[in-house]
Amino acid sequence: MTSTRLHLEDLAVGQRFRAGPVEVTRAAIEAFAGQFDPQPFHLDEDAARASLFGEQVASGWHTAALTMRLLTECAPIAGGLVGTGGRIEWTRPVKPGDRLLVEAEIIGVAASRSRRERGVVEIRVTTSNQRGETVQRLTAKILAFARP
Amino acid sequence: MTSTRLHLEDLAVGQRFRAGPVEVTRAAIEAFAGQFDPQPFHLDEDAARASLFGEQVASGWHTAALTMRLLTECAPIAGGLVGTGGRIEWTRPVKPGDRLLVEAEIIGVAASRSRRERGVVEIRVTTSNQRGETVQRLTAKILAFARP
Repeated sequence: MTSTRLHLEDLAVGQRFRAGPVEVTRAAIEAFAGQFDPQPFHLDEDAARASLFGEQVASGWHTAALTMRLLTECAPIAGGLVGTGGRIEWTRPVKPGDRLLVEAEIIGVAASRSRRERGVVEIRVTTSNQRGETVQRLTAKILAFARP
Repeated sequence: MTSTRLHLEDLAVGQRFRAGPVEVTRAAIEAFAGQFDPQPFHLDEDAARASLFGEQVASGWHTAALTMRLLTECAPIAGGLVGTGGRIEWTRPVKPGDRLLVEAEIIGVAASRSRRERGVVEIRVTTSNQRGETVQRLTAKILAFARP
């Protein structure tokens, strides 16, 4: 919450934030899947060949978590990034060795009617790989706070 | 993909799946946050007291990942749980020591128009804590496959 952090008054539609790349290793894919999404097409290269994907891919929730990591690196919202929810779409598999980039754009800023010191910012977050292909789209609502 | 797994023909609106509880330890909250959501209110008990939350809470993406884990334990969809996306809403913070339960209900089953061997199942997934409070709502679309 330093002075360089963005408060509700500082946020406007069209502002963009970018971060990455982060490399998604096979070991990281397997570690995440082992904890949170233990399905053969995430856990094991050989088993993945017999699956829908035909090769090992990351859990969509892993992509979402890495997207969050990149957002924390590039979107300096005062009070932190606190999401209330959103829409997520996985458009393409993430594969071992992929390098992910995130671009977030503010698409809405609304002050709260009931609490003047608060607002909600809507962001559209596109996660793409090293070939420029979109792997995930997320539209999320996050809290924003007015200057004290 | 044993015969007890559910194919497109086996799935119907109103079917429910339940799993849990899984305990969310403080160590797990900090480990997830360190990797994917390194914000003070997730990482550190003392720093969290000065935050919006007033106490340490789990990343929403951690709740989402644990929800996925529980879904893999209870929803025996043939071919695995492959989501194309959905809507997520975090209704209440998850705190150290909380024990999460998941209940999923099928709210839609649609065969693909272009590929008869495939369909899309819509599920509503409610994640709740040990007090019966909803902490996350997710509505997701997942692929389903007809019997060969």
